[in-house]
Amino acid sequence: MFAHNKRLQYTVRVSETNPGLANLMLEQFGGPQGELAAACRYFTQYLAEDDPGRKDMLIDIATEELSHLEVIGTIVAMLNKGCKGQISEGALSEAELYKSINGAGNDSHVTQVLYGGGPALTNSGGVPWTAAYVDTIGDPSCDLRSNIAAEARAKIIYERLMNCTDDAGVKEALGFLMTREISHQQSFEKALYSMQPNFPPGKLPGMKQFSNVYFNMSSGEGDTRGPWNNEPTFEYHEAQPAVDGGSGLPEVHMGAHDSDLVEQLAMRTRSDPQSDPTTGAELGMSQGNGGTAKPKAKTTTPRRPPNG
Amino acid sequence: MFAHNKRLQYTVRVSETNPGLANLMLEQFGGPQGELAAACRYFTQYLAEDDPGRKDMLIDIATEELSHLEVIGTIVAMLNKGCKGQISEGALSEAELYKSINGAGNDSHVTQVLYGGGPALTNSGGVPWTAAYVDTIGDPSCDLRSNIAAEARAKIIYERLMNCTDDAGVKEALGFLMTREISHQQSFEKALYSMQPNFPPGKLPGMKQFSNVYFNMSSGEGDTRGPWNNEPTFEYHEAQPAVDGGSGLPEVHMGAHDSDLVEQLAMRTRSDPQSDPTTGAELGMSQGNGGTAKPKAKTTTPRRPPNG
Amino acid sequence: MFAHNKRLQYTVRVSETNPGLANLMLEQFGGPQGELAAACRYFTQYLAEDDPGRKDMLIDIATEELSHLEVIGTIVAMLNKGCKGQISEGALSEAELYKSINGAGNDSHVTQVLYGGGPALTNSGGVPWTAAYVDTIGDPSCDLRSNIAAEARAKIIYERLMNCTDDAGVKEALGFLMTREISHQQSFEKALYSMQPNFPPGKLPGMKQFSNVYFNMSSGEGDTRGPWNNEPTFEYHEAQPAVDGGSGLPEVHMGAHDSDLVEQLAMRTRSDPQSDPTTGAELGMSQGNGGTAKPKAKTTTPRRPPNG
Amino acid sequence: MFAHNKRLQYTVRVSETNPGLANLMLEQFGGPQGELAAACRYFTQYLAEDDPGRKDMLIDIATEELSHLEVIGTIVAMLNKGCKGQISEGALSEAELYKSINGAGNDSHVTQVLYGGGPALTNSGGVPWTAAYVDTIGDPSCDLRSNIAAEARAKIIYERLMNCTDDAGVKEALGFLMTREISHQQSFEKALYSMQPNFPPGKLPGMKQFSNVYFNMSSGEGDTRGPWNNEPTFEYHEAQPAVDGGSGLPEVHMGAHDSDLVEQLAMRTRSDPQSDPTTGAELGMSQGNGGTAKPKAKTTTPRRPPNG
Amino acid sequence: MFAHNKRLQYTVRVSETNPGLANLMLEQFGGPQGELAAACRYFTQYLAEDDPGRKDMLIDIATEELSHLEVIGTIVAMLNKGCKGQISEGALSEAELYKSINGAGNDSHVTQVLYGGGPALTNSGGVPWTAAYVDTIGDPSCDLRSNIAAEARAKIIYERLMNCTDDAGVKEALGFLMTREISHQQSFEKALYSMQPNFPPGKLPGMKQFSNVYFNMSSGEGDTRGPWNNEPTFEYHEAQPAVDGGSGLPEVHMGAHDSDLVEQLAMRTRSDPQSDPTTGAELGMSQGNGGTAKPKAKTTTPRRPPNG
Amino acid sequence: MFAHNKRLQYTVRVSETNPGLANLMLEQFGGPQGELAAACRYFTQYLAEDDPGRKDMLIDIATEELSHLEVIGTIVAMLNKGCKGQISEGALSEAELYKSINGAGNDSHVTQVLYGGGPALTNSGGVPWTAAYVDTIGDPSCDLRSNIAAEARAKIIYERLMNCTDDAGVKEALGFLMTREISHQQSFEKALYSMQPNFPPGKLPGMKQFSNVYFNMSSGEGDTRGPWNNEPTFEYHEAQPAVDGGSGLPEVHMGAHDSDLVEQLAMRTRSDPQSDPTTGAELGMSQGNGGTAKPKAKTTTPRRPPNG
Repeated sequence: MFAHNKRLQYTVRVSETNPGLANLMLEQFGGPQGELAAACRYFTQYLAEDDPGRKDMLIDIATEELSHLEVIGTIVAMLNKGCKGQISEGALSEAELYKSINGAGNDSHVTQVLYGGGPALTNSGGVPWTAAYVDTIGDPSCDLRSNIAAEARAKIIYERLMNCTDDAGVKEALGFLMTREISHQQSFEKALYSMQPNFPPGKLPGMKQFSNVYFNMSSGEGDTRGPWNNEPTFEYHEAQPAVDGGSGLPEVHMGAHDSDLVEQLAMRTRSDPQSDPTTGAELGMSQGNGGTAKPKAKTTTPRRPPNG
Repeated sequence: MFAHNKRLQYTVRVSETNPGLANLMLEQFGGPQGELAAACRYFTQYLAEDDPGRKDMLIDIATEELSHLEVIGTIVAMLNKGCKGQISEGALSEAELYKSINGAGNDSHVTQVLYGGGPALTNSGGVPWTAAYVDTIGDPSCDLRSNIAAEARAKIIYERLMNCTDDAGVKEALGFLMTREISHQQSFEKALYSMQPNFPPGKLPGMKQFSNVYFNMSSGEGDTRGPWNNEPTFEYHEAQPAVDGGSGLPEVHMGAHDSDLVEQLAMRTRSDPQSDPTTGAELGMSQGNGGTAKPKAKTTTPRRPPNG
Repeated sequence: MFAHNKRLQYTVRVSETNPGLANLMLEQFGGPQGELAAACRYFTQYLAEDDPGRKDMLIDIATEELSHLEVIGTIVAMLNKGCKGQISEGALSEAELYKSINGAGNDSHVTQVLYGGGPALTNSGGVPWTAAYVDTIGDPSCDLRSNIAAEARAKIIYERLMNCTDDAGVKEALGFLMTREISHQQSFEKALYSMQPNFPPGKLPGMKQFSNVYFNMSSGEGDTRGPWNNEPTFEYHEAQPAVDGGSGLPEVHMGAHDSDLVEQLAMRTRSDPQSDPTTGAELGMSQGNGGTAKPKAKTTTPRRPPNG
Repeated sequence: MFAHNKRLQYTVRVSETNPGLANLMLEQFGGPQGELAAACRYFTQYLAEDDPGRKDMLIDIATEELSHLEVIGTIVAMLNKGCKGQISEGALSEAELYKSINGAGNDSHVTQVLYGGGPALTNSGGVPWTAAYVDTIGDPSCDLRSNIAAEARAKIIYERLMNCTDDAGVKEALGFLMTREISHQQSFEKALYSMQPNFPPGKLPGMKQFSNVYFNMSSGEGDTRGPWNNEPTFEYHEAQPAVDGGSGLPEVHMGAHDSDLVEQLAMRTRSDPQSDPTTGAELGMSQGNGGTAKPKAKTTTPRRPPNG
Repeated sequence: MFAHNKRLQYTVRVSETNPGLANLMLEQFGGPQGELAAACRYFTQYLAEDDPGRKDMLIDIATEELSHLEVIGTIVAMLNKGCKGQISEGALSEAELYKSINGAGNDSHVTQVLYGGGPALTNSGGVPWTAAYVDTIGDPSCDLRSNIAAEARAKIIYERLMNCTDDAGVKEALGFLMTREISHQQSFEKALYSMQPNFPPGKLPGMKQFSNVYFNMSSGEGDTRGPWNNEPTFEYHEAQPAVDGGSGLPEVHMGAHDSDLVEQLAMRTRSDPQSDPTTGAELGMSQGNGGTAKPKAKTTTPRRPPNG
Repeated sequence: MFAHNKRLQYTVRVSETNPGLANLMLEQFGGPQGELAAACRYFTQYLAEDDPGRKDMLIDIATEELSHLEVIGTIVAMLNKGCKGQISEGALSEAELYKSINGAGNDSHVTQVLYGGGPALTNSGGVPWTAAYVDTIGDPSCDLRSNIAAEARAKIIYERLMNCTDDAGVKEALGFLMTREISHQQSFEKALYSMQPNFPPGKLPGMKQFSNVYFNMSSGEGDTRGPWNNEPTFEYHEAQPAVDGGSGLPEVHMGAHDSDLVEQLAMRTRSDPQSDPTTGAELGMSQGNGGTAKPKAKTTTPRRPPNG
């Protein structure tokens, strides 16, 4: 069960309202790398986890991320507080309000017109948060790696946001949130490596002949060798089709009735490679409009006259 | 520039058509952990990457993932081939076709009615693929970790799919695809660690006092200690608000005009905690319908008579 | 700041695992009327709210909804627990596992293949949760009405779910969750009516001549009168265009240069109503295939010869 | 069956083209609180409704909302009319056109580049309309409340838009649309209360012991009492887990085979709380980069040597 | 199998970085008419196609579209290259970086804050690409028409983008991409018309009495006649309901038990058209606030007293 | 302005309720090829269209599609009518209701649990309708082609649905709807070709050297020639990079400061191709688990000792 304390985990002190900056901050409120995504990722893992250590860690961190969602959402609310009064009370002239709404040069107009100055669960482009951002799949060796990556990403987005503002209070609170991602990443790393073995994930072994092969699928100037495609880990192979030694062509067995239907479909919809039919595009061509003069000669001998 | 060879990277041999199994396979075609997501993830990183080694590796693997998209999509097409004939030619009785479409007990009806038996870029639940699955953010220490996690997840989904089929050809091709995820994960790991330092990601350091702290946000039976919250990496703290030592309450400065508007808004929309207003719910209550008998007495002294 | 207690708000006792039932339960976990939507609705309102009473109420209820999200998610996890073992350990035969995954006849295959038996933030159809479900707009007279409606909807979905299961423990926990929606609805009703006036919402008055008019836009048998379109509240009018007394046609002023461009565009793309052009469809017609024999005669005198 | 009259329900007179204003107007065309959402909400309810009075009312209002969709869409088209010529004819210099497209400081560039100056079913942030906005669930006591809330929200968005423009014709037409939301809300209110009882929604009663309880889930300065959590409607309780008097812990019964698999899974993926494993993060650390110096000492005694 | 060559299909030469222009270019990278949509459309058709000619053409063009995706993505990457350095290195002052991020007046802030200057699979409004853009349905007479339309649309979006930039290198590369759409459209046209018949699509004929009828559903000034609604192709009919000659009303047969339930539901939720209930809106009205004074008189005779 | 007549355009007679069939029908209600998409496509085009003939045609057909939306939605409602009673009244035993909800083997459980038996704007897979389905771009030569393709697709989906049911009344109404798509396609064809020229779309000509070239991007057995890649329309070229004769490599000019930052970023994040770093994967490997034994030898000479 959750409980709430009306004090934030970290005090938010905003120097002045700034709806454009508020808009950027939404990236960590309702954006893909933001705190709702983090909280949902760990919370859903918690619910299905049975390992006592991971389970406890997951809910500790999920709960902290909810508390961070509150911190970043509070920053957004403070930065928009003036706008909220403006849009609700209609006390500016229309021209001033229009300018206030569009002046930031980003998507803050959505916050104001649609959300009335409140923090909305969108990213800085106005895109609603979606659970498609949550990559939990219910396997700890995967989910912990996903969490490690997610913390790293969140750290960087906070860093970018910090670089965009000189409001000392905002910067300090962002700094706290950024720091906690560093800490959480380390917890998830410890949890991953305290489960041994954790690579390859799952139970089924790979096919030995392909699990340490690197295929050079892109050729040309720029081919580079390094530990990611070198001995001793990898054998370096040039790309080739049908690495199994087969035909590279698909096969399927069907019952006779299905085969007949497939054949019937093929006949009904076959194309005639010998034809040169008049086309709709040709019906719509005009002279001198773009390099398509060639078809004209051909249409003196259409394979089938239109509707004929 | 891409080029294509009509032979698959791995030969696909399907024993018999099976639309229900085809539906499950869509998970790795147009699902969040599938091959389109993988190809898009690495391809977008490739385009913005300047490091020669990573750039080459990213396009090699992106190109291979496109080739895997072709393999899994071919499996789907083969498994649905009979259905495609059935739905296109209308040659079964209506009752048989209805049964064929719904019989698998999963979402294969979408494949047949909407997509005509072809592989669609959806997951096994019929949800269209979205770029929200792609977590590229343009920082190599993050993106490589995201790639490592993505490969791990894809490996597991293939493992689950392999456990669901005894079609030897399908199983073998899935095994190849699964194995390549193991190999790719190792490449991304090598690339990550050949960039030093890679932790913490980015340039800004964390606040020292919070980067190795673990907050015990969830209390009660089940609290567990382990390397993820223990010395030497972590100091273990009980949860507390306002860890900065401040009030935990937000502040913002506004200009006088904005302050006036905010105050005006507050006055206009204030609630009256002393009232006990009659509500719409009370207008709609009836006797004996669910534990809501209490309000009745109260309404003899409404704070404001309805419309009075 | 949030904190968590490892005990649930209501004890969950599940009689036996049942992945099909788990799938239905997802409706209240990650569905549009579910607990995540509720928590997010009230939490975002809380962040921007300044009225002390509403602010406190919103966070109390938001926190409880998070706790309900935990209860319903726990039900899902328990119902799927057997499946989680099956899909992870691969210990059934392929045919048995395939049957286990598809047997429920609903979308539980997504839970198992993609989410490994864990509760995912989707609805029962596998659609990922989206913040598009959250209708907060930052005005209390609206948001409270939205909350009232949302609680009513959630109550009904729980009622439907209760009707679908005879697992006593599941039913009891669902009953608790359903009951709390009744209670929450009453709180939001009280809050709405303790803010006076609350209708019409906002500040701008309507145009008097149209604010109590009912337009009969649909004619024919079935027209019914009642308080929703009757005196004394409403004047009943038959539908008519241009109720302002104007032309009903749009007008806009443009500068001369823009007008010229618009005219140029119109000329460039004008259609010729006097023509009877041969069309692509006619090029593709065949005899005896579906009631489209008429065009043939016409094409003996095409207005413009193809490409001529 | 629908029919259309080429005159609008309300005459649209736009003073001058203004693509930035057009962009804001999209909020009520393809936005969550806009006219398409309204029309779809009532139309879907109409189709399934059997009560003669509600059924008639729903289609009357649905039809009017479609007519409003036409009015707001016409406003958008008029405001963009100049841009449509510019983008189609390419008659400005590139620099002028670039400026025209980006100058509004909001998302009007999407309207112009992607939609060619036409009204698109997106909100003002460019997000495509989704049926996720439609909260119809097929129960009249819920759907009418949803409709009431939706009308209230739409009224406010129109009010905000009116505050942003001094174009008299646009403002007048918006005023009409806003007014009609007031009228519609009243119809839905009358319809709700002419169905008795309507609270609680549905048939199943709540559990008496929990239907009039208010849980104080958020503690600290700011706790406020009012009719929403006071006697006589509510009993005020402090938050507590396991309000049913049980353990607060989940239980589920599984068959022996499933239990074995779950145990096997747990063993295979258990974490070792006694370990202090070297982690990937530690492999990527460098000196002096952010408060993470501690792990160094530890690694002199790794629990398991890497790959050892 | 795909392979890659490190040289682009067309050389990209960008005069100077320009993040605002980059943002517009995203329309053809991750937008609905862009290259990913094109590649996915043709690739999915390829996988299910059995006609040798179409199959070969589809993969040729799909592969070329992937190569175009690379070209347009490279343009985006080059235009953002300076920004990528700025946002990653944090070397500008905060005010300069904030201005750089928001200065373009479009959605380039998303590219920078969320994607670190890299090309993301979104459109120019920041909306993630979705497979909902792909309209493949598995019938060649439909899919080829969809492809023709898609190529036409892509041609126009490129034309609009070309009109917005005077960067000669960008313009030239866009011109190449635009030209290839013209070529591809012609290929799809030839393929469509080399399959005879191709109209109407599919096998089932239409009902003769309705397949060449045009219904005049919209009346009033502006009714226009032309080949699209004229003889010889069409009979022009005024709109009328129940064109089948029936009642125009729906019917369904239900078993007795279902009928009883439906009747029970109707009774439980019936509205009372004779009532004039007090409503929630009336509880919230105040004097002098917007044309809603009428209800007051009525409430002296409520049909049912509140809670009475 | 729209008006409504309570009689349907075509009488709907359903033999018996059938929720599974209802689920399939949703494809044409809220699916990508369904009637809402059609109505929205033509209606948005109508609003921005200035050509009198096309404008009239577009609103005639848009209005008819709305009327078709009503017909298909009514079919869904009738087919679900029994279920609606069941789910609302809770009068079946739980086991019976559970079976009724899941028995169809498709997504009808969503209709019942979430939508209460009413028609919802989703496709048959439960995916909410999105305006991403609407491909209007505001150019008539494109939009008409999109409309032609859309009508063709809708025709086929109706054909597939007709093949799935032997309910005579449903089949007849579907037949009417299917037929009208044939008619509409012909109208759009006539409108397209009555605008001359209509190919290539737009104003800008293509580059002559590339507008009639076909690139053979896919090699291998299966290369096929036909009118889509043959003389006289096309020159057939083998794929080659840098068809412009340049380097095929991208270039961009940056200012000195930006160049410095980019260089700084490159140095900070460079990978070391000479290293063979120990990786996280190696920390997690165990013996005998899947073809990854090779790294062991290497780690005896790590380039950098872990944390050393």
